[in-house]
Amino acid sequence: MRALDLLGGGEILTEAQCWDLLSRKNVGRLAVTAGGSPDIFPVNFRMDGGSIVIRSNMGHKLLAASNAPVAFEVDHVDVAERFAWSVVVHGRGVVSPGGQEETAWSGPKDYEIRIQSEDVTGRRVSGRPPA
Amino acid sequence: MRALDLLGGGEILTEAQCWDLLSRKNVGRLAVTAGGSPDIFPVNFRMDGGSIVIRSNMGHKLLAASNAPVAFEVDHVDVAERFAWSVVVHGRGVVSPGGQEETAWSGPKDYEIRIQSEDVTGRRVSGRPPA
Repeated sequence: MRALDLLGGGEILTEAQCWDLLSRKNVGRLAVTAGGSPDIFPVNFRMDGGSIVIRSNMGHKLLAASNAPVAFEVDHVDVAERFAWSVVVHGRGVVSPGGQEETAWSGPKDYEIRIQSEDVTGRRVSGRPPA
Repeated sequence: MRALDLLGGGEILTEAQCWDLLSRKNVGRLAVTAGGSPDIFPVNFRMDGGSIVIRSNMGHKLLAASNAPVAFEVDHVDVAERFAWSVVVHGRGVVSPGGQEETAWSGPKDYEIRIQSEDVTGRRVSGRPPA
C-alpha cells in the first residue's frame, strides 16, 4: 500500500471508486522522472475507457513521459468541510501523435500521452459519515 | 524554462509572485522518485521562511524524499472562471525528526521534510485582465 499522507488516516477506496472519482475531474498532476529527478505538471486530462489521456505539445514533459513510468494524481480537498479524496494512477506513459483537438485551456496539442495503468489507489477522509 | 502544460500559454510569474502564491495555500503535491519511478502524494505544508516544510510519518514518501531531489507543486484552478495558476518548487528533500505538532488532517507526525529550494517557477492564466 502506498502512503497518501494527507489522507493517511482515511478510508481506502476500491478501484471502482477510484475510477469513478477520476471520471469526475478534468485537471490532474502528472509526475515524471527526468534526468533522475522528479518533476510535476498540472494537466488537463480525459478518460478513454480505462486510460488517462493527456494532450501535450512536444517538450520536456512529453519526452520524460514517453515509454517511462509515470504517476498521475487527482484530488479534491475541502479544508472547511474536512473532506478530501485523492486518487493516484501508476503506470507507463505511451506517447502518440494526436489531432488538433482543442483543450479547454491552451489550444491545440500535437501529441497525446496515454497512461497504461498498472495500479490505481485512492483514499478519502471525511468529517461526515461515509456515504 | 519548464513547461507547465495546462498553463502553457500563461503569464510567467516572478519568483516573488510564486512565493506569495505558495504562502496562500496549505495543500500541495510532493513528487519523488522511488526505485526509478515517480510517485506523487498530496500533502499539508507550511512555509518556514523560504522553505517548504511537510510533516510526515516514517514511510515510503519520507524515505524517497530523504536527501533526494523532489518536486513540489501547488495550484489553483477555476475552470468556470478560466483562471488558474501553478507554482512548482524543485529542490532537495532534507528529513529531520519533528515534534508531535498536529497537522490539520491526520494527527501528529514524527518527521518533517524540508525542501531546500533550487528553483521556483510559476505560471498564471486568466480570462480576466492580469491584476
